[in-house]
Amino acid sequence: MTTLLPLLTTDASGCCAPVTAGVMDVEDAQRLARVFKALGDPTRVRLLSMIATQSGGESCVCDLTEPVGLSQPTVSHHMKQLVDAGLVTREQRGRWAYYTLVPETLAMLSGVLDPQASRAGTGSSC
Amino acid sequence: MTTLLPLLTTDASGCCAPVTAGVMDVEDAQRLARVFKALGDPTRVRLLSMIATQSGGESCVCDLTEPVGLSQPTVSHHMKQLVDAGLVTREQRGRWAYYTLVPETLAMLSGVLDPQASRAGTGSSC
Repeated sequence: MTTLLPLLTTDASGCCAPVTAGVMDVEDAQRLARVFKALGDPTRVRLLSMIATQSGGESCVCDLTEPVGLSQPTVSHHMKQLVDAGLVTREQRGRWAYYTLVPETLAMLSGVLDPQASRAGTGSSC
Repeated sequence: MTTLLPLLTTDASGCCAPVTAGVMDVEDAQRLARVFKALGDPTRVRLLSMIATQSGGESCVCDLTEPVGLSQPTVSHHMKQLVDAGLVTREQRGRWAYYTLVPETLAMLSGVLDPQASRAGTGSSC
């Protein structure tokens, strides 16, 4: 029997100190790189901004296809990468999938990249 | 005659509003995605943290190879992607290349990803 395990845990709560705070260990760097890789595509950056802009940070996939000019399967493929990276969650309701922003992941990334974080001694919020 | 132009301008000063502030335009999304793509590799995340941790945010390539366990050409290849993304600058001094952090690019990314930025009305610092 084969058990499928997630490639990496993307729980934001355990990750990560600011990049300016010290040499990052391999595990944290892998976790962060995975999230950055998900953001390394302009369509996914735009999709994330569309969801983040909505009231409650939630969007139906049916509202995401037209603004980016792509088919629903292509949008769903991009969205899966954002879900796997922990940037959004996905919920199926009847015919449509709904995606919700995970602000904790954005806050974690923002804290990690803040060049003032270590100097101010505040660290990341996660 | 062929003139080589940079693929994209990575000047952080003109980019970008927080992802939560509104639907991002294509140009800003391309600029951001390029920087995120450069960070979408664990070795590059670690190299960036090594440079960011140094006093003055500067490192000689000669000090970067051993900690990541890679050859100098491989490290230089990774560093070129961080330079092209505007995350570090490169200066050749005699035999060695020296890399310096660009804190403005980190601050721009941190502001763009801050989930509180638009609600607080502060926007990005760039």
